[in-house]
Amino acid sequence: MPKAELARNAAGRMVPTEINGREAVPYKGVAAHRPTGTRAAPAIPTVMDYPDCGNKTVENIKAALEAAGIRDGMTISTHHHLRNGDFVANAVFEAAAELGVKDLMWFPSASFPCHASMIDHMKNGVVHHIEGSMNGPLGAFCSSGGMRGMGVLRSHGGRYQAVQDGEVHIDIAVIAAPTADPFGNAHGLDGPAACGLLGFALADSQYADKVIVVTDTLIEFPCVPWQIQGNYVDYVTTMDAIGDASKIVSGTTQITKSPDRLRIAEMTAQFVREAGIMEQGFSFQAGAGGTALSFAIFLMEMMREAGVTARFVRGGSTQYLTRMLEEGLTDYILDGQTFDLDGVRSMRENPTHVNTSPFTSYNYHGKGNFASMLDCVVLGATEVDVNFNANVVTHSDGQLLHGIGGWQNCLFSKCTILPIPSFRDRIPVLVDEVTTLCGPGELIDVIVTERGIAINPRREDLLSAVSGSGLPIRPIEEIKAEVETIVGGPPAKPAFGDRVVAAIKWVDGTVIDSVRQLG
Amino acid sequence: MPKAELARNAAGRMVPTEINGREAVPYKGVAAHRPTGTRAAPAIPTVMDYPDCGNKTVENIKAALEAAGIRDGMTISTHHHLRNGDFVANAVFEAAAELGVKDLMWFPSASFPCHASMIDHMKNGVVHHIEGSMNGPLGAFCSSGGMRGMGVLRSHGGRYQAVQDGEVHIDIAVIAAPTADPFGNAHGLDGPAACGLLGFALADSQYADKVIVVTDTLIEFPCVPWQIQGNYVDYVTTMDAIGDASKIVSGTTQITKSPDRLRIAEMTAQFVREAGIMEQGFSFQAGAGGTALSFAIFLMEMMREAGVTARFVRGGSTQYLTRMLEEGLTDYILDGQTFDLDGVRSMRENPTHVNTSPFTSYNYHGKGNFASMLDCVVLGATEVDVNFNANVVTHSDGQLLHGIGGWQNCLFSKCTILPIPSFRDRIPVLVDEVTTLCGPGELIDVIVTERGIAINPRREDLLSAVSGSGLPIRPIEEIKAEVETIVGGPPAKPAFGDRVVAAIKWVDGTVIDSVRQLG
Repeated sequence: MPKAELARNAAGRMVPTEINGREAVPYKGVAAHRPTGTRAAPAIPTVMDYPDCGNKTVENIKAALEAAGIRDGMTISTHHHLRNGDFVANAVFEAAAELGVKDLMWFPSASFPCHASMIDHMKNGVVHHIEGSMNGPLGAFCSSGGMRGMGVLRSHGGRYQAVQDGEVHIDIAVIAAPTADPFGNAHGLDGPAACGLLGFALADSQYADKVIVVTDTLIEFPCVPWQIQGNYVDYVTTMDAIGDASKIVSGTTQITKSPDRLRIAEMTAQFVREAGIMEQGFSFQAGAGGTALSFAIFLMEMMREAGVTARFVRGGSTQYLTRMLEEGLTDYILDGQTFDLDGVRSMRENPTHVNTSPFTSYNYHGKGNFASMLDCVVLGATEVDVNFNANVVTHSDGQLLHGIGGWQNCLFSKCTILPIPSFRDRIPVLVDEVTTLCGPGELIDVIVTERGIAINPRREDLLSAVSGSGLPIRPIEEIKAEVETIVGGPPAKPAFGDRVVAAIKWVDGTVIDSVRQLG
Repeated sequence: MPKAELARNAAGRMVPTEINGREAVPYKGVAAHRPTGTRAAPAIPTVMDYPDCGNKTVENIKAALEAAGIRDGMTISTHHHLRNGDFVANAVFEAAAELGVKDLMWFPSASFPCHASMIDHMKNGVVHHIEGSMNGPLGAFCSSGGMRGMGVLRSHGGRYQAVQDGEVHIDIAVIAAPTADPFGNAHGLDGPAACGLLGFALADSQYADKVIVVTDTLIEFPCVPWQIQGNYVDYVTTMDAIGDASKIVSGTTQITKSPDRLRIAEMTAQFVREAGIMEQGFSFQAGAGGTALSFAIFLMEMMREAGVTARFVRGGSTQYLTRMLEEGLTDYILDGQTFDLDGVRSMRENPTHVNTSPFTSYNYHGKGNFASMLDCVVLGATEVDVNFNANVVTHSDGQLLHGIGGWQNCLFSKCTILPIPSFRDRIPVLVDEVTTLCGPGELIDVIVTERGIAINPRREDLLSAVSGSGLPIRPIEEIKAEVETIVGGPPAKPAFGDRVVAAIKWVDGTVIDSVRQLG
């Protein structure tokens, strides 16, 4: 791969101006890039090319890929609702390898350790590169420079935006479906691989040239609700099992047991209450990590005490969110993915547990989206700098390890709170400058650490709201200095090479930062 | 309007080759026209142009139209789920008139007698012409040559196809919503103007440049289920009442009391049973007219007797269909519109009473649709000729009186049955050649009259299936001759002028026939 031309973007980061042969726009600021042009426009199909009886089944994935006209250089997409239990993406690229196809671009909504076999496909030429979150071994492979093309990391909303805007053209979308009918209607509510919903595959179904649904639970038409609409689907096929249920959703999600994390979670909930956010009819979103879960439990207790109910909470849903719903502490769960079995059950049973998609929740190139309507959101980060800029994809050692998920999209809430330990494994989390910029500081309002709470100086309203609350509000620089005293100074800078191995997109499709090869 | 250039299409009908300044393709045969090009592609929006808080409300319809940039010559669309009780379309064009805008094209999914004020708007120049079904006075106005542009009648599926394919570009869509939130999420399940669902407005929401939601029941976000997604909506506004509930849905739908019609309905059900269509897991669709309702009731009784249940029935739903669902005689209702209060209630309460859209059910330029999967469909007609061609928009007097609705789309079922009286008001319904061709005979399988059942000779399978059943199977020519003997001959030919006042589209966007000015 030739060395990328770089330009300095509005955040001061050097970013490629061309990505995998396509022009890239450097980040211009949080809300500064105005899109031009029109939405992607797939070819007009005709029912003449589809069976009248509605039966689109073909023998297996290989036959479906052949029928879809797979050939060298195509972009093949998959979704990640089956998380680390997914069998489908691997089966697709095994079939592609058997067919002798080369240089594919894999466009997953995220990838997981279970997809480590893609490393072999990249080594033997079947896969050219991956655009999508690369968790674990694939991130390490990318960081080490093993991928021929440049990795592109997008938020969930950014992925929808990229497909909608025609920035990524999907030739063949393969949609793993826990339940489907022969017409291609599909949902995630039932079947051995039930994952709740299929929102991450929505853009793929709407915009790909060819769409293949793969299921292990083929039922008679109609498969209701059609979270994926068969009218977008070309072929349907089956596998014995599309996933390992035990790795798709947790049996139950676990709260943190670390005393420090529990304290951070409790302070976060206290902050939400004291800042006047926890008011009748409010809304919030928290992830499924141990600290975020504990935050939700603390907040739930405070809501009960105060007699306050939420209008809606956003999932990733867990047993704790479904308990809130069923107890009447929230009118609705607006859910993007179900993280445990109870989330799946609740979505199946409760009409007020609503499945959403990156289109409704996160698409920056829509006529509004849900993310900016949230009263507060509680997120993680690998690093935060003194200007409240945050990193979520690399650690201080420079290794690409995590995807962006909905993280960037969520920053648009009215109050973004990052509850984080001030150091991990004796490496400070608060730094002078983040290794990789994923979220601009102007969108990040509050950092909650075990050593105190730092409020972004831009948010004078929050500073005055919690003054006199007794909460340990401190300048971020002070907390950072304290941590450095304890661990013996700031983290060592990673030994980056020159080559850009991955680009980090902002929610509007511009490039906010890049990741360089390690060593 | 200059006289249209005409060409003879594959059905032998003379049709315009240009419609309202746009090239038109003459009908080539039932499944002979292959579309080219790509789906319509609206401009890419950005959330930067929408309020972060999600509140898109503006003061009134006039303010919404101004904000949407209304100007001369634009295309304004509305939907017809409020049927003859709609207040919104009239309010929109009154506001447009007040704003001094001229030459608009009104693109309703259908129009009703309540929209007769459009005649004034056409006379005073606010509205240039209408593309959409014109029931009652608007049809008569069009037939008399009063409209400056050419009327275009499309099926429900054809309307979706035309918008999707970019054949009709909607500048501003106005969506009457029985319940909505300030973000623009909307549904038809609740509120004083509850109409069940909003599927006819789906294409409008997806493809129009600007989308306005008008409601009389504005609720707090989120309005669930979002049958219309707020992410497609630009403005939300309110009216005291969007419709007259008593004219939106019937209190209850009524079966026919005519002994002839009852006999036709019963014979139709008998045919369905004897032909082997009424088998375990079958599917059917019947309309909400008196004969079709009676057919459903007779069939229901036969199903009970035989111990047979349907996998799905297609609505327009009525109290009879909801009874089938709730009694377990069908697993699902796949519903395009609710015709009575019980239909609305059932859709609100039963997850197996599923709302559908012209996209799922009827779009000919999709990757299949539901219509061709039906085991049988029972439809009406104003005329049928000896080759089984049928008319549904004009009577034998040549006057445009009805819309196409889903009629053309439904013809693709496995068995299309038209239960019709052999004459109406002493005018034969069976003719040598239909006044206006809406449905090609090769798609119409069975005609059931009070004088016997005629089976299309192409359907040898049906002929042999019912031989020996005791049903009065007769050649269509024989029934027609008998009727003519009774009423004194075939109907008089209408006195058409030369000018084409309306074009009838086929499901693929080609022109299957034209309607000429009367007198």
